[in-house]
Amino acid sequence: MNIPDSSQKRIVIIGGGFAGVTIAQKLNHKGFQVVLIDKQNYHTFQPLLYQVATGGLEAGSIAYPLRKVIQGFSNFYFRMTSVKEIDTQNHKIISEIGELRYDYLVIATGSKTNFFGNKEIERNAMSMKTIPQSLNIRSFILENFEQAVLTKDVNERNALMNFVLVGAGPTGVELAGALAEMKKEILQKDYPDLDIQKMQINLIQSNDRVLNTMSEKSSIASEKFLENLGVKVYKNLRVTNYDGRTVTTNTDIVFDTATVIWTAGVQGAAIHGLKADALVDRVERIKVNEINLVKGYDNIFALGDIACMETTQYPQGHPMMAQPAMQQAALLAENLPKYIAGKPTKPFVYHDKGSMATIGRNLAVVDLPKYHFSGFFAWFVWMFVHLFSLIGFKNKAVVFMNWVYNYVRYDREGRLIVRPYKKKSFVTFTSDEV
Amino acid sequence: MNIPDSSQKRIVIIGGGFAGVTIAQKLNHKGFQVVLIDKQNYHTFQPLLYQVATGGLEAGSIAYPLRKVIQGFSNFYFRMTSVKEIDTQNHKIISEIGELRYDYLVIATGSKTNFFGNKEIERNAMSMKTIPQSLNIRSFILENFEQAVLTKDVNERNALMNFVLVGAGPTGVELAGALAEMKKEILQKDYPDLDIQKMQINLIQSNDRVLNTMSEKSSIASEKFLENLGVKVYKNLRVTNYDGRTVTTNTDIVFDTATVIWTAGVQGAAIHGLKADALVDRVERIKVNEINLVKGYDNIFALGDIACMETTQYPQGHPMMAQPAMQQAALLAENLPKYIAGKPTKPFVYHDKGSMATIGRNLAVVDLPKYHFSGFFAWFVWMFVHLFSLIGFKNKAVVFMNWVYNYVRYDREGRLIVRPYKKKSFVTFTSDEV
Repeated sequence: MNIPDSSQKRIVIIGGGFAGVTIAQKLNHKGFQVVLIDKQNYHTFQPLLYQVATGGLEAGSIAYPLRKVIQGFSNFYFRMTSVKEIDTQNHKIISEIGELRYDYLVIATGSKTNFFGNKEIERNAMSMKTIPQSLNIRSFILENFEQAVLTKDVNERNALMNFVLVGAGPTGVELAGALAEMKKEILQKDYPDLDIQKMQINLIQSNDRVLNTMSEKSSIASEKFLENLGVKVYKNLRVTNYDGRTVTTNTDIVFDTATVIWTAGVQGAAIHGLKADALVDRVERIKVNEINLVKGYDNIFALGDIACMETTQYPQGHPMMAQPAMQQAALLAENLPKYIAGKPTKPFVYHDKGSMATIGRNLAVVDLPKYHFSGFFAWFVWMFVHLFSLIGFKNKAVVFMNWVYNYVRYDREGRLIVRPYKKKSFVTFTSDEV
Repeated sequence: MNIPDSSQKRIVIIGGGFAGVTIAQKLNHKGFQVVLIDKQNYHTFQPLLYQVATGGLEAGSIAYPLRKVIQGFSNFYFRMTSVKEIDTQNHKIISEIGELRYDYLVIATGSKTNFFGNKEIERNAMSMKTIPQSLNIRSFILENFEQAVLTKDVNERNALMNFVLVGAGPTGVELAGALAEMKKEILQKDYPDLDIQKMQINLIQSNDRVLNTMSEKSSIASEKFLENLGVKVYKNLRVTNYDGRTVTTNTDIVFDTATVIWTAGVQGAAIHGLKADALVDRVERIKVNEINLVKGYDNIFALGDIACMETTQYPQGHPMMAQPAMQQAALLAENLPKYIAGKPTKPFVYHDKGSMATIGRNLAVVDLPKYHFSGFFAWFVWMFVHLFSLIGFKNKAVVFMNWVYNYVRYDREGRLIVRPYKKKSFVTFTSDEV
């Protein structure tokens, strides 16, 4: 049994995402007591959530137990709870399971879906930032088809087979591509009593290109890939509301649909208790300096999506992605002992290793700092990078096996409704003869 | 798109377990319209549920999409719904999504947990007959340990680490063994701040031996294996109640525990609408003749756990296991066309291929009709048989890979609380300093 070593300074890390896990791993043997806190007992590999949502992977293959991350580390602790507030005056956090004092606090709470204040969309649309949300989407897609088989009302049937994805960033694009493959490879065969050609996948982007954080070449290539797969791409279209059945937009275009998946924006997963001038309005991020120290505090740091480090190259902070989060975390693990000892620290410089997105079988786009490519080789690179970024040998092996199987067999066996999803706002019905 | 061929006789199968899936597969190309009905959209490989409950396997690896079972079969349909009642007069079933006429009905609803009428136990104990139930157990085990880390009340901590399994049949024995391995291989390492030696695994059997449907040799061997793993086995002990915290028995022995898993009995998953004299009281099974035709009907059949075929060798019906279910289903698929054509049918004879149970790493017991063995080779046979009984190549491959990984690494990475389980009756608490 471990006895806490209270002679060591206590670092509390809130959040076991890319930033939290990276800094925890790198703080081992640095002479601190470390407490890692998360609402879940697992780390989620978010870039592959869309494959869980579309039945290509099981949830377990992209999740990793947080207790295993710190297994064997001396004077490391994990607590599963939700942090309600930080009491910066008394250097403690207030959580659902009680209070905890810290010497140094690292906020790595990540981001959440941003509905830009539209409560009706928030109530009726689905998000895909967590494993339970992805499992809800998986269930709901399949439930829609089970209902579509039954209904005699043509409009209702079409609405059940109409999928509207709002936001054509990497998540929206990858999900649209996966849905298009699901249509062709699975739903077509699973529902011979439905006219699957009626299934629509609509991808809506408010500005003039998909993947607008990537190169123009990649935007053009991915849009072409999507259209070849049968995805209908709408650009310069803004969704104004969704009442659970009808999507309205800033134009005359409306969509009659049971399913809206909202990937149009993210915001920091804010935490209470920081001074107002440490916060960036609208996106709910926390202002940090060049070593991720929160503005106005000397013992609170913020990392990753929640942190906003304004630099010349990134005046609104770094992109809310895994890479900046991991790089900041790794640097802070190095800087922290120096900072505490009053020694010089190293300012953060983001090394953009590039970005990529996959659209479907053999199709991806990759932007490297000086080079862009797309198609089969890009798809191969995408797979390789994602496979090797997963934590844990078993997850890598199981994901790899699933991918090979899905690729060779044109199949996705994860089409299981394990946790039914009940959407309240859509009309239900009974038919006479099933 | 498929257009139903209504010239063919319609066979409705209720239940996609071992019996339902087997008969559906074997009815292809026999000239019927077949409608398969299940509450879930997947088949569950129940013998491995205990591995899902203990984090060794992901739920998806032991589930298989029912629509895929009948994919490509002509004039086959699947409907996901719950059957409320059979209207035998008008030859139709009444389901939650509407009514459906049948020419021939096959009831294969399986079994459910039998609490022998004790509502308080039913409310407070957990069962393990379905995937969601197994995931609940997995979550609850882990939640208990997360709570145990926090509480300062020694009795509460011990209760959280005390697991009481009622019923030492194959399910109880296999679960007890898996919990014992989880204790040694995972919990010990994951919770260094707990004294894991305090974790208790109590297995309670009402009569004088564990695995009492197997040979005496196997009972003795498995009991020894369990005790070596640290499981406390209680024989001739009957649980009388469980209020959510205290298990009382027919003796002075009581258990203070947060978790009771009830595997002490099963009963048929009954269906309304059959005449009373077709039913067997107490166990809720349906009386069938030697070709599984339900007593008193000429177009309703029952298969597997729900069917009670009284024979000289099995006066109370066949054991409620996969083998009789699959054998009955295969025979009925052969007999049905003959029966309809008025030709002679073949009566069912159960070929007992033996039974087996695994207790843990390298430990299992196997009873073949004329030969019993236990230990490493039995364990190897157990794995081989279970692996090859799984439906689907991908499931086989993923389960195999997980088993190799878990074996080599002494690990179970499925220790994820994806759907938290809330038990209402156990005391909750907050501590001051976490």
